[in-house]
This record gives sequence, C-alpha cells and structure tokens, in this order.
Amino acid sequence: MDAFAYTPDLHCESHPLRHLAERFGTPTYIYSRATLEGHYDRLAAAFAELHPLICFSVKSCPNIHIGRILAERGSGMDVVSGGELHRALLAGTPPERIVYAGVGKTQTEIDAALRARIAYFNIESEPEFETIASIARRLNIRTRGALRINPDVDPRTHAYTSTGKRDSKFGVDIGRAVRFFETYGRDDFLKLDALHLHIGSPVYEVAPYIDAIQKALALIDKLAARHFTVSTLDLGGGFGADYETARSPLAADYAAAIVPLLRDRAAKGLKVILEPGRSIAANAGVLLTRVLYVKDGWGAGPDGAPVPKKFIICDAGMNTLLRPALYSAFHFVWPVAPGPNFIPERRAQAQSMPGLERCDVVGPICESSDFLAKDRFLPPMKQGDLLAVFTAGAYGMSMASTYNSHGLPAEVLVEGASTRLIRRRQAIADLVAPEQF
Amino acid sequence: MDAFAYTPDLHCESHPLRHLAERFGTPTYIYSRATLEGHYDRLAAAFAELHPLICFSVKSCPNIHIGRILAERGSGMDVVSGGELHRALLAGTPPERIVYAGVGKTQTEIDAALRARIAYFNIESEPEFETIASIARRLNIRTRGALRINPDVDPRTHAYTSTGKRDSKFGVDIGRAVRFFETYGRDDFLKLDALHLHIGSPVYEVAPYIDAIQKALALIDKLAARHFTVSTLDLGGGFGADYETARSPLAADYAAAIVPLLRDRAAKGLKVILEPGRSIAANAGVLLTRVLYVKDGWGAGPDGAPVPKKFIICDAGMNTLLRPALYSAFHFVWPVAPGPNFIPERRAQAQSMPGLERCDVVGPICESSDFLAKDRFLPPMKQGDLLAVFTAGAYGMSMASTYNSHGLPAEVLVEGASTRLIRRRQAIADLVAPEQF
Repeated sequence: MDAFAYTPDLHCESHPLRHLAERFGTPTYIYSRATLEGHYDRLAAAFAELHPLICFSVKSCPNIHIGRILAERGSGMDVVSGGELHRALLAGTPPERIVYAGVGKTQTEIDAALRARIAYFNIESEPEFETIASIARRLNIRTRGALRINPDVDPRTHAYTSTGKRDSKFGVDIGRAVRFFETYGRDDFLKLDALHLHIGSPVYEVAPYIDAIQKALALIDKLAARHFTVSTLDLGGGFGADYETARSPLAADYAAAIVPLLRDRAAKGLKVILEPGRSIAANAGVLLTRVLYVKDGWGAGPDGAPVPKKFIICDAGMNTLLRPALYSAFHFVWPVAPGPNFIPERRAQAQSMPGLERCDVVGPICESSDFLAKDRFLPPMKQGDLLAVFTAGAYGMSMASTYNSHGLPAEVLVEGASTRLIRRRQAIADLVAPEQF
Repeated sequence: MDAFAYTPDLHCESHPLRHLAERFGTPTYIYSRATLEGHYDRLAAAFAELHPLICFSVKSCPNIHIGRILAERGSGMDVVSGGELHRALLAGTPPERIVYAGVGKTQTEIDAALRARIAYFNIESEPEFETIASIARRLNIRTRGALRINPDVDPRTHAYTSTGKRDSKFGVDIGRAVRFFETYGRDDFLKLDALHLHIGSPVYEVAPYIDAIQKALALIDKLAARHFTVSTLDLGGGFGADYETARSPLAADYAAAIVPLLRDRAAKGLKVILEPGRSIAANAGVLLTRVLYVKDGWGAGPDGAPVPKKFIICDAGMNTLLRPALYSAFHFVWPVAPGPNFIPERRAQAQSMPGLERCDVVGPICESSDFLAKDRFLPPMKQGDLLAVFTAGAYGMSMASTYNSHGLPAEVLVEGASTRLIRRRQAIADLVAPEQF
C-alpha cells in the first residue's frame, strides 16, 4: 500500500527515517514519491474505462513539488483559492486541467483563474455565478461552469467533513438545480454545462457515491429534457485512506461500484472528473518527530480509576498536525526504531506484544487539545527517540500553524536513491519578519 | 470595557472600521491600544496590594507591537517557546521579567533562554528539570525554577483548555511536589524556589483559584517544614474575557477573592506572578471581514424541520479564526454598518430587534467545520458588507493557518488619532517561497 516499512527500523523506500531525522531535523513531513505515484496510477487504472480527468486536490497536500510529480503523470489539479491556483501553475499543471471549487472565491481570485484559462469553475451559488459571469464578460474571456449540487446523502463521516447534506454551505439542492440552469444556463461567457458532486471526506463506503451519482444522472436527464446539455460530471473526491485497518475500500472497489453507472454515458461522451486528495497523499507521508521528554502521569482506566500513564512529549503537536485535536482523528504512531520485539503487525490501535506501556503522545503546545494520540500502548520510549505519525501526508502540513510561535516544519521528498528538501523549515526570524518595518 | 462601539457605525476608538477595511483590506485583525492599556492597568490596579509581576501571555496575542505596548507599561512576558522568547525580547521586555513555561522546551530553546538571563523556568517534569539544570551547568549560567503543580481542581472550562487536572500533561501532582523538592531542591544552577499554578483558560469563576491557591499555600508550608523556601508563587492566567454577557468576572472580582489569601504572605516577601493573556487581549481586538456572497440555504428548526437560512460567506474562516471550529467557541458577529434599526444592545447571541434573519456566518474553506458563527440572527446582509467578529484579540491571529493556501491576515493597531499596520498581509508569493530553491 505504501513504501514505509519496518526493516527492522522504519524506512521510507530505501532510506532509514533515523538518517532523515539527522539530516533534516524534526519535526519533518516525509513523503514517498513511489507511494504517491503508485496511488495515482492505481486510481487512474481503476477508472481507466471512463477516461476521467483526475484532478488532485491541492488542499490535501499543497507542496508544489508533490504537485509537480502528479502533474508530470498527467494529473490535473482541484484548487480552492488563488493561492492553490498559483501552486498548481507552479507545479506545471496545464490550465485546461485545473478546476476551481470553493464557496468563497474573491474577485481577485476569479480574475486570476480566468486569465489563466482554467477548465472549470465549480459554482456554489447564484451570486457566485453572477460574479464570475460578470468578470468573464468584462475581461472578454469565455469559461465554463459546473454547478455543484448537494445530493443530500449522508456520507457517515465526521460532521466537519461531511459536505453534501442539504444543510451544507456548499452547492445547491438538486431541486434548485433545474431553476439554476433555467436562470443561468444560457450565459455566453460562463457556459454552464457540467455538474459537480462532493459528498464529504473521508467516505469509507461506496453506497453514498452510488446514491449521489444516480441522483445526478436523473438530474442530467431532466436537464436534457429542458435542452440543457451536461457534458461533464465531476464526482469530487472523498475516497478514504486506510488510517488503521481494512476500513478503507481500494480504488478498485470504488471503481467497481462507480464505473458501471457511468460506462454508457462516458462512451457517449460524458466527461468524468475525479478530485482525489487523501486517497493519493495520506499514506504517502509520515510526520517524523522526536521525543523531548517522557513524563510519568495518570490516566483513567476502564473503570474510571486512575492508572499510570506516560506522557510522551514530542516536538510535533497540534500546530504541526491538527487532525487529532480538530476531528478526534486516529493516526497510528510508532517508534522509528522499536527494536526486534516491537515490530508492529499493522497500523492499528491494538498491538498485542507484551511490554507495551499506556501513553499519551503529546506536543509542546500549552493546551490540553495538543495531542497526537491518546491512551495508546507503545514500546517503552526515552528522551531523544524518534516517532513516526503515519498517514499524515494529507491534511497534515496543509493545516499546520505557527501557534505558540513555533515555525512550520520542513518537508522532505524521498525518491528512490535520493532525498531532497521540498520545503525549508521556518526559522524564528521568518515568523516575525512580517511585523518588522 | 473596550473601545469598539457603534456610533452609529462600528468604530475602534475614533476610527470607523469601514475606513480601516478600505485602507488595509480584509480579513484583518484590528486592535485598540487604549483597550489593551486599560485592561492591563485595571488588572494591575486590582492586584496592586500584592505588587505582582504581571507577565502577559505571549501565546494569546504574539504580535511584537502589542508586546511593546505592554512592556512599556511594565508588563513582563510569559513565553512558551523559543519563538515567543524572541518576540518578548524584540518587544523590549527586560529579561528579568520573562518566565518560560511549556512541556516541550527543546535544548536549543533552553540554551537561548539561559543566555538571555530570563527570570524563571516553569518546570513541568523531572526530566525537564534535569535537562535545564545540566545545560545551565554546562553554560555556567545560574537560573531559577518554578515547579508547576497540578492542584487537581476542575476549572469547568472546555476539556481542551483545562490544564490543572490530575490527568493533564502539565506539571506534577501536589503529592509529588515534596519528592520533587527533595530530589532537586538543592541544585546550584537551577534554583528551585517557586511554584507555578495554571488551572486552565478561560476560568469564569473565582472558586477554582481559591481552591488551587489554598492547596499551594499548604504545600509551601509543608516545604518550609522541610527547609525548602518558596519565594515566588506564579498564579498562572486563565482569567476569563467577556465573550457575550456578564459571565466573566472583572479583574477586581478575581482580585477580591485572591488578594486576601496572599496579602500577609506578600507583605512578608512572597513574590506573586500573574500570567494574563485573554483577559487583556481578547476584547482589545476584532476580526474585520468582508461578505463575499450571501446564499440561500436550509437549516434545522427547533423541531428539526427544515427552516430557511442564509449562508453569509466571508473572506475570513477557520484559517483566520480557529476557535469556533476547535472549541465550539462563541464570538459575537455583527455588521460594521448595521443601520439605525440594528444597533446591538450587547454582544449576546439573542438580539431582540425585528427583521433579523437566521444565518450561518462561514468562511471560504472547503469543509463544514469552516464557520465563524452558526444559527445566529443577523440584520439582512449583502455582498460586500463588512462584519466584525468580536473578542478576537486573543487566540485569534495566534492560531491562524494558511489552510487552503490563503495567506495570513494583516494586523492593524489603532492608537488614538493614528492607525498603523503591525503585521503585513501574507502574499501568495510568500506562501510558496520556502518551497522554491
């Protein structure tokens, strides 16, 4: 599934993470090029029959060097801001492979995207359509729009990352879509000829996709009866990544359910767009962190009584990886050099080896939300040891902050025999520079 | 309480926020110097009898220009990282007024703090004591330590910001403190002669402070019987800010409860340290944001049935102000120019004027956690209007991120007749510069 393996210390491809920590310091995000490419290729192969345009979700892992690897492989980019558009272009993405989503596009951002001649704007509301159309007219640049519809399916993911329900800020109800086409579907500058679906992320089941696609196809037919042609269907992203066990379907499983629904339409010319992010990037990255202190403390046992617990205090925290604090997200955490008795069997919470200790893995930030993992059982750890936080390649660096005035971490790319820095660690001087005049 | 008032449009001191938006753009954090100074002075006056050293909590509002205002007034600084130490020194804080807390101090950071000759290290664990003492010895620099103790009181605040309970990563149990002094209390280089308390933030009641201080005083006596002198008691911070109604005690209320407990000890030489952050900075700042789109949508009414709702889509979101998403925090949000019928009476959720509309105030970020306020009743809003998010001066900018590749916002200081930029808005080019070699 990915190129991070214990042989017997943790390696990324052929490189021991211990060496990467010495060379680049900690905390650092480490990415495997082979894994990124493998995930992209597997997805492309699974959906090949539909000849989709795969637009990598830049927000999941925005580094331009990651983008370049995927763009060279034929990937387009799904961007949600002017900053991401700039990144996609720097990564060498052909503009006709860029789609622009998001509820809050500013006039400056729309202007830049029009001038760049991107493929599609995903349209989230009536006033957004009017704004984009009017700027397109003023600039005399013709573009295309995909109406984002809320299929009102429940992806059964975290409330914070469920985006396709009726009470969401995203898109419009299916019922409102016909009216939308009747009002805006004949615009000369913003040609509305596509639909966009995005139901949330991560979605671990195929059923919500089937439900949403069936609703979209019914809508396409309804629109056709009113002489509106939908030539492109953007399925969004949200495919799960395997954070722990076998909960996450493979690309092939999603494809097995989705391709039959769209095979005939695609053969007749319906263009399909996919916007994967997490399923490509998450398991292509780990967060490498060093243990600063091991501290004895107390936790609550199963019956609520106090039980001894170690606090493993690391140089990475909620500032480096926000997902545990924000979404109560699970990330597998394990020592980089666990010793022969502690090679993990899989990346699951429960590990059955004798000798493990109850731990909270926490960061240097001054609040109790600052944890990477809570009530885990880990091999005995000591000051200076290295830990890897797995499945951190998506929504890791992209959500990092400088809270408590810690600089942003470095990013390193492993590619076969070589490794290279793809983002410099932020120095203290860089933090305050914008305040110095 | 603060210098943000509707007269009839929202002003910061004498400046209409509308003008500040035109001049500096949005989203922007706006601070009032008079409010900062007023809050600091009020706190200092309330506790004057104890002659405390007030150390402003840099993490709450780290801008060096804010720090400078407070340092000029006599404030010290409570820092929790090497980055914050650097900020405190840039702000002109005398090093003997700097205390350094936090569970994850690195050797590099300890080294810098020792060389700067700060007043105190707040000591969070045994291995941290050993690490600081050994670096102090190596550098031949004598310093002092305050043992952070967990008084095991429940501050009844959000679980994420409650830090003084027994199962916290912070400090040591009171029971362990005596052992700690017996083991480390005779060190020549790291002189352990102080205690540090910090029970959480925001704490809206005085009772937890009384409880914690009484426990600390009993410990001081117990230590004295074993010939360990505690010459300084750091009470930490956590004083609430008024986010909405009268829930938040005034500095004078905290002082009325705390001063009598410490009056005699202070007269006999016990030095008291306070570490306020939120109570000084929160109401000294608002987040100024512009409405990009107003979109019709649906929410759930009291009986669960769908009710119409507006989505007010702004250029500020969870990337700009994380507290609503992370802590479900309440911030009062109101138009900058509401018109004469909509001048708010107070900054509370319920506003009784006729003509308000049910709204979610959301940002441009592509996930459902991206909101500033949910299910509020606001005056009718339109594209281009300005909104103010109140009580945003603490843990606002300090927790901001570049998620979705939006640059960090600008910060502006209003001081009497003049206004000035105190942090430049981050440009797109700045975002990607660390990735370009």
